[in-house]
Amino acid sequence: MNNTPAIQRLGSNPRWSDVVIYNGVARWVEIAEDTTADAPSQIRQILEQIDATLASLNAERSQLLEVVIHLAEIRHLQELNSMWDKWIIPNRAPVRACVQSVLGKTCLAEFIIHAAVPVLPRP
Amino acid sequence: MNNTPAIQRLGSNPRWSDVVIYNGVARWVEIAEDTTADAPSQIRQILEQIDATLASLNAERSQLLEVVIHLAEIRHLQELNSMWDKWIIPNRAPVRACVQSVLGKTCLAEFIIHAAVPVLPRP
Amino acid sequence: MNNTPAIQRLGSNPRWSDVVIYNGVARWVEIAEDTTADAPSQIRQILEQIDATLASLNAERSQLLEVVIHLAEIRHLQELNSMWDKWIIPNRAPVRACVQSVLGKTCLAEFIIHAAVPVLPRP
Repeated sequence: MNNTPAIQRLGSNPRWSDVVIYNGVARWVEIAEDTTADAPSQIRQILEQIDATLASLNAERSQLLEVVIHLAEIRHLQELNSMWDKWIIPNRAPVRACVQSVLGKTCLAEFIIHAAVPVLPRP
Repeated sequence: MNNTPAIQRLGSNPRWSDVVIYNGVARWVEIAEDTTADAPSQIRQILEQIDATLASLNAERSQLLEVVIHLAEIRHLQELNSMWDKWIIPNRAPVRACVQSVLGKTCLAEFIIHAAVPVLPRP
Repeated sequence: MNNTPAIQRLGSNPRWSDVVIYNGVARWVEIAEDTTADAPSQIRQILEQIDATLASLNAERSQLLEVVIHLAEIRHLQELNSMWDKWIIPNRAPVRACVQSVLGKTCLAEFIIHAAVPVLPRP
């Protein structure tokens, strides 16, 4: 058994990786592509971007384990819930936390996501 | 080996799962059952609710890996610490972070919890 | 196979553990040793402390999986990025989130860190 942990990364750049996959868990952070949009639009974008990331992982919404949501204004919780409830797979939902945090620049929502993916055999 | 990750959920509803168990880690988010109570009471409730969730997982406080605590008012940190220090198993404590965040409605504390549970054999 | 999860802890005290290692993941929370310093200094201290913790785990920066950063003032994001970009291993970066949160006392930055370490054989 090799002692070096087998880490996979998607979309690495000098500051962060878009997705880090390790030991059967994919982790990523999602903010809207267009952060000039209003909060509901940013939330909608993020849900669509999560779908795209899941697809690139060959995974589905039912494989989400945990989603921690930071909203710049907690008053958008209802709009988040309304979009979320239609989006999530009933009875196969992740755990979820939602708090208000000041975010960078014009970013109004930031999601931290963990999803289950197949455990890779060690090299 | 089946390629579909084996995810267990406790208390699923259309919005979130109460607990998600995967690859030897149980994850859940705890807010007080009664969020009309004051902050110390909400914190006390949450610690009791964690005990109940651990019991439902056939697990103990010593299996806590990580607890991220959001308090609506960081001035309650001392009361949190005083309750926490009596509650936690000395020298078998998780890592812990505590920050102030605006939370939904009358919620004054929200805990994000990871605990170790036995790794299930893959189906 | 023993059913008790194998958890390792470094630097346990009655309130928390400095590092918890489980199932190939080391988790820890880092705040500056000297929280009387200004924000850039606290961030610099934290990056150095992460290096020290990684060394104690016989691990490297390239093994970082996820770093969630709470800054007391998001206006220090640029200084964070400038130090971070020099510190991180290009194309082997973790996922990263950064939000503003009120922190305890004079603490101006708090990092929650997950890093990959070799999976221990079960006892």
